[in-house]
Amino acid sequence: MSGAVDLELRPVSPAGDRLVKLADEHALAFAERAAEHDRLNTFPDAHWAAMAESGLLGACVPERLGGLGVTRVQDVVAAVNRLGRGDGSTAIGVNMHLSAPWFFGRLLEDEADERRVRELRLLLRLAGSGRAVFCVAFTEHGRHIPWPATEARRAPGGYRLDGRKGFATNSPACTVLLSSVRVVDDDGQPRLGFALVPRSAPGVEIEEVWDALGMRASGSHNVVYRDVALDERMVIVTGPLGEIATATFPLVLVNALGLAAAFLGIAEAAHAHAVDLAGRTRKAPSDRPIAERPAVQHQVGEAEVDLALSRGAIAAAARLLDEFFDGHAQADLDPGDLHRLMKTVQCVAVEAKRRAIEVVDRAMTVSGGAGYATRSLLSRLYRDVRAGPFMQPFSPLEAYEYIGRVALGLDPMVAL
Amino acid sequence: MSGAVDLELRPVSPAGDRLVKLADEHALAFAERAAEHDRLNTFPDAHWAAMAESGLLGACVPERLGGLGVTRVQDVVAAVNRLGRGDGSTAIGVNMHLSAPWFFGRLLEDEADERRVRELRLLLRLAGSGRAVFCVAFTEHGRHIPWPATEARRAPGGYRLDGRKGFATNSPACTVLLSSVRVVDDDGQPRLGFALVPRSAPGVEIEEVWDALGMRASGSHNVVYRDVALDERMVIVTGPLGEIATATFPLVLVNALGLAAAFLGIAEAAHAHAVDLAGRTRKAPSDRPIAERPAVQHQVGEAEVDLALSRGAIAAAARLLDEFFDGHAQADLDPGDLHRLMKTVQCVAVEAKRRAIEVVDRAMTVSGGAGYATRSLLSRLYRDVRAGPFMQPFSPLEAYEYIGRVALGLDPMVAL
Amino acid sequence: MSGAVDLELRPVSPAGDRLVKLADEHALAFAERAAEHDRLNTFPDAHWAAMAESGLLGACVPERLGGLGVTRVQDVVAAVNRLGRGDGSTAIGVNMHLSAPWFFGRLLEDEADERRVRELRLLLRLAGSGRAVFCVAFTEHGRHIPWPATEARRAPGGYRLDGRKGFATNSPACTVLLSSVRVVDDDGQPRLGFALVPRSAPGVEIEEVWDALGMRASGSHNVVYRDVALDERMVIVTGPLGEIATATFPLVLVNALGLAAAFLGIAEAAHAHAVDLAGRTRKAPSDRPIAERPAVQHQVGEAEVDLALSRGAIAAAARLLDEFFDGHAQADLDPGDLHRLMKTVQCVAVEAKRRAIEVVDRAMTVSGGAGYATRSLLSRLYRDVRAGPFMQPFSPLEAYEYIGRVALGLDPMVAL
Amino acid sequence: MSGAVDLELRPVSPAGDRLVKLADEHALAFAERAAEHDRLNTFPDAHWAAMAESGLLGACVPERLGGLGVTRVQDVVAAVNRLGRGDGSTAIGVNMHLSAPWFFGRLLEDEADERRVRELRLLLRLAGSGRAVFCVAFTEHGRHIPWPATEARRAPGGYRLDGRKGFATNSPACTVLLSSVRVVDDDGQPRLGFALVPRSAPGVEIEEVWDALGMRASGSHNVVYRDVALDERMVIVTGPLGEIATATFPLVLVNALGLAAAFLGIAEAAHAHAVDLAGRTRKAPSDRPIAERPAVQHQVGEAEVDLALSRGAIAAAARLLDEFFDGHAQADLDPGDLHRLMKTVQCVAVEAKRRAIEVVDRAMTVSGGAGYATRSLLSRLYRDVRAGPFMQPFSPLEAYEYIGRVALGLDPMVAL
Repeated sequence: MSGAVDLELRPVSPAGDRLVKLADEHALAFAERAAEHDRLNTFPDAHWAAMAESGLLGACVPERLGGLGVTRVQDVVAAVNRLGRGDGSTAIGVNMHLSAPWFFGRLLEDEADERRVRELRLLLRLAGSGRAVFCVAFTEHGRHIPWPATEARRAPGGYRLDGRKGFATNSPACTVLLSSVRVVDDDGQPRLGFALVPRSAPGVEIEEVWDALGMRASGSHNVVYRDVALDERMVIVTGPLGEIATATFPLVLVNALGLAAAFLGIAEAAHAHAVDLAGRTRKAPSDRPIAERPAVQHQVGEAEVDLALSRGAIAAAARLLDEFFDGHAQADLDPGDLHRLMKTVQCVAVEAKRRAIEVVDRAMTVSGGAGYATRSLLSRLYRDVRAGPFMQPFSPLEAYEYIGRVALGLDPMVAL
Repeated sequence: MSGAVDLELRPVSPAGDRLVKLADEHALAFAERAAEHDRLNTFPDAHWAAMAESGLLGACVPERLGGLGVTRVQDVVAAVNRLGRGDGSTAIGVNMHLSAPWFFGRLLEDEADERRVRELRLLLRLAGSGRAVFCVAFTEHGRHIPWPATEARRAPGGYRLDGRKGFATNSPACTVLLSSVRVVDDDGQPRLGFALVPRSAPGVEIEEVWDALGMRASGSHNVVYRDVALDERMVIVTGPLGEIATATFPLVLVNALGLAAAFLGIAEAAHAHAVDLAGRTRKAPSDRPIAERPAVQHQVGEAEVDLALSRGAIAAAARLLDEFFDGHAQADLDPGDLHRLMKTVQCVAVEAKRRAIEVVDRAMTVSGGAGYATRSLLSRLYRDVRAGPFMQPFSPLEAYEYIGRVALGLDPMVAL
Repeated sequence: MSGAVDLELRPVSPAGDRLVKLADEHALAFAERAAEHDRLNTFPDAHWAAMAESGLLGACVPERLGGLGVTRVQDVVAAVNRLGRGDGSTAIGVNMHLSAPWFFGRLLEDEADERRVRELRLLLRLAGSGRAVFCVAFTEHGRHIPWPATEARRAPGGYRLDGRKGFATNSPACTVLLSSVRVVDDDGQPRLGFALVPRSAPGVEIEEVWDALGMRASGSHNVVYRDVALDERMVIVTGPLGEIATATFPLVLVNALGLAAAFLGIAEAAHAHAVDLAGRTRKAPSDRPIAERPAVQHQVGEAEVDLALSRGAIAAAARLLDEFFDGHAQADLDPGDLHRLMKTVQCVAVEAKRRAIEVVDRAMTVSGGAGYATRSLLSRLYRDVRAGPFMQPFSPLEAYEYIGRVALGLDPMVAL
Repeated sequence: MSGAVDLELRPVSPAGDRLVKLADEHALAFAERAAEHDRLNTFPDAHWAAMAESGLLGACVPERLGGLGVTRVQDVVAAVNRLGRGDGSTAIGVNMHLSAPWFFGRLLEDEADERRVRELRLLLRLAGSGRAVFCVAFTEHGRHIPWPATEARRAPGGYRLDGRKGFATNSPACTVLLSSVRVVDDDGQPRLGFALVPRSAPGVEIEEVWDALGMRASGSHNVVYRDVALDERMVIVTGPLGEIATATFPLVLVNALGLAAAFLGIAEAAHAHAVDLAGRTRKAPSDRPIAERPAVQHQVGEAEVDLALSRGAIAAAARLLDEFFDGHAQADLDPGDLHRLMKTVQCVAVEAKRRAIEVVDRAMTVSGGAGYATRSLLSRLYRDVRAGPFMQPFSPLEAYEYIGRVALGLDPMVAL
């Protein structure tokens, strides 16, 4: 798009254009109801119905299976970013959801096993029509990601699943849960794995506990599995405990970058609000708009710097992922490469989320006391945006050591 | 106190010891109810009744007039700080209130006019018994402090007052309001002045509009004056519009520093909570307390640095004020000196309030997701502490230029 | 390049590949002599001879005119970045030089006037063979860029030039100087313009005054013009004083972004040195490499974050420039668009240069006392990298207000 | 001093007044020669002769033993700060020197052993006349402070000393060296200890290796001990290896805080220079001093904030030390208290040194390109001030974990 003069995240394919256009339209509508869902701590079912209807939820499903055919990470990330401008809670839920069909589509490309192909196609077809909505439920309170306590034990015909997941964003909307699990096979040896759990399976319960400072409409509840029976093919062993599985790395990478884009969207909304306010707010005795005060220009200038850096870096990282995934089939993935790629994504994500907080803070400053009022958009965004750093896979308590260890050539997983 | 090993704010006189001991006790009690007042957005009348009862509200009244006889800014600031650990909303209200009798006590020392002396004594006696509670209502939406629109017009026997003040912290508890006003005397020439308004005077209304992100129990409502009749002596002309009046500078200085101490208290409470949490929270697979993780130690270390700097600088600034006021009677105050003193107080206040925000943010980080929950103490403190920079006299949009202009020898009031 | 796992600046065309390969080779060689030129404050003539020889100096000249045919800003910026890793002084000189033929090449594309075309071709042919080396001498001490005091006065057959330029990076190597000038035509009305001055013209003098904290091999001397006679065609009026001329905006944009890339290169060199050091340095009593200390990992992690953000944002901005310039011929340039584009470039540049300083600072910290020694690479890089923010067009004293004003829709040039 | 309006470090006793007055006078004289010593990398012998002459070097010696009788840490720290404004190199040397007689004076107070008393008196009398100049040589390359490799082995009549110390600030001026040592007594068990070594003893060599980015006149050379014979009483065992000895903690605390004050002085000098420059520098086209530009006021404002916080916190910490030491004789010192006190001092020191760097950086920014010139005062101060964080006992690589561990109630020495 040759007319662009800023680093706003933009789609890079015709399918991406359609997706981002949809995201923009939804964002506008969601923004109107976001304050109410925040106040009442309710889940915006209507948002999800609308996105199923419009086809947005099927964005990453191939066209032949009923979706929009988006394959570019750059497109996904741009769409999540736009949704974030309207409603951060919904944006992070969509990010979680979209990454799943994107990942299944990638698996499908290289899959030789015919039964597997049929299953993936079925799943994607359901996603394409908006009937399959995914919830990535990995986090457990008090445990690092690659050390889940949730256990899938061998049982006749498959597995039995027990455990509890927290921060399961988007759980009220989902029909399928993806959870990391500790697989205990017949040899009694626990391994890290991955389970696909139908929301409707007996023993699955969503505990509606989510009540937080912000992101109140994200439905990030607990999920409890109580002796849930799973078909054998719904559990996949990915490797030893304590490591990020090579096979699922692409999913984790896309998820992490999309989250950063969502929080960037929140910051963009706050900044736009502040710029608008600064042009309209007048302060006696001069009665000129406060935009003309150098201190306001300075704050706005600093926020622009933060946004430009985050946008540019997210865009560059998304492009990097696309190029890397294009060049590497699942079978060709190398753990060393993936950790270096994760280091890059993590650098961008941890900083973009931190700067998003600062941008909203500056918007608050520009607003004078006005932004501090409960009814102000800014006071909600200030609460929402603080969620960013808690988001997985690496919080600030882990991220810098992880990054540092990869850079220094040390085993990075020790940091966790 | 020779056993001290940190820079905690401490009293420096026997009267101050009593005051700070009271503040500590109240803080403990207030902390228990703070969450509820926050949730319901209610004013803690019981806190104010208890402080009237205990004598805390009369702290700055001479003993002979029924108070505790506190004269040291250092003592006041330490007490406000302790209250801030329990309930920031009440702490900033108490700060506003206490500065008034402190200021009247100072005026009394040098006052020669006998009628004036009688009036000040009466006011102080009321304050000493807890019956006079003051609200400093200076701020007006959309106007800089030394340019009020609220007007006191000459009228038979005194003045008539009209106008609207915002952010009138503590207004539900007060019996007397102190407001900056534009005095229009018979010559039609507007001047900057100062009015003492009985809460019960006809035409005074508290608009209960305060509903904000944090500091929800501070009762920072609007005050409306509608043709309020004031006795002549209740209005004092202090100087030209657009300047901070020399005579009221001491009040403004003490107020500004006390506010910083209140927000420091909020930060201290958050930090103590995080340190406690870090010792108790265990994270698998090692199952050791997260306090043993270097990243947690680093966060705690940075927060300690912030607290030490703020504490040390507030203590030093409070001592400076005491020494300066001891050496300068009201009649000896020089505007140039006062601006340089204000520069110092402002440097300390703007930074202590900014760092208080960062300390709470770090506590949040240390908490993992736990602090983000609505029920967590940290999520309330995170909202409360953000109010600091908005507080008068200088927000971050004015403070740096003000400080810079004083340092560069330029007229500082132009920055406003 | 599908194998990439980080955001390193990379070429995007075959011509760019050749250029960046050359830059890498030169950087290696330059690095060896950089310490000596720094110590002796000498200009590295040999570097410039080598780059003329290798063809690097002709990189932006079309192949048919003897150059490498590089047209992508992305390629130029990547090459300057690589040179910066070896020798920052030479890198900023090359950046200044390369932007000129890049700009002339761009002018050539749309030029209709045949005489003009012949002149541009001649200039480019000289540059292609390494015989024309350009010095962009815009800065004047005590004056903002669009208000030069250097004056080109109408005279028979052309103009006479008088004035003094400072910080004329690369002046010892140059054969042609490009200077902003105040053109005074027959109407006596001063306008902003642009002069091409042969180094060998009578009246041109390089005052060898450059002796600075860092960037000592950059030859950033003064240039004095004393009644220099210029052919009419060597002076071009670009617009009113006080504005950045629309026509020269592309040159300024490329220059500004290239500078940021050069300073990024310095930071990358320091970081690589620190990482290497951390792996080798052992500290008793444990005698393990300090790389294993969490505090070192944290520092390295923070530096990686800074580098990733700067790299990603510079890459994204360079791509944006290429796309914009592809879509806009010189005749189609709109001042509003150009300021918004400059805002973007400025956001990236001001921050990348600031973070480059921080990265070198962190490398210093990781080094322990070792990096503080005069003989250490880090102590030189620490001095070099501090030059970044002074570089034109906007220093930190102007940049944030400029950015803020563009964002707020105000006239940006007032900030200067 | 009731007229004070800022937080400048000030003496608190008559003896301190005399000391600080001397320091101010010396600073003025030293400032004139500092640039030359920096350029030539020479040690300012004349500074030390002048300070012996004036009595400054004997400041901490009781009056009855020929000194000024300064006992207050607040006075010492203020004097070192003033020297820092004139010449940072000399200031840190004086800090090292002064802390020794201050410490011996403290030991003398509680000493019962008569021979010990005589020795301390002798040492102090020498110091009082300026004939004993101390060098605290603790640091060893590649080792943490409480794990020295320098060894004092039992030998007939006393000990033999071998080892090498680095960063021995002030070594060219000294007559007595204080070094931490590994004492190996007859039982073969190594313990941490402390040696007093006459500079003139056979086997003591100063290796003149100091050649660094800044602090070039500090003479921070290596000291080599080669089989140096020491009288028994010159070696004191203080405790187990790996711990800071309780007895020497006071020395370390005063040293650490004085260093922070020295670097504050460097920052104050840079800031004063920038403020002065801003009032004189004019920039076309407006031709008004750049002090009138809001961006300059903002920079100056931020620097004032940094200075106010550092000054206030250092003053408060110095007062804390005085009160603590007044209340605790050597025999009453408790390691837990001392670590908490060290935490406080370390918080203040690490941050004051970091902010000193930022203040000089801002001064550089305000200067425009001018401060970057080699001849500029600012370019020297920029190099000098960077030494701060390397200074012992805790560099930034250790300080935050140390502070965090003390705050979290963990064993702090593990962090080293």
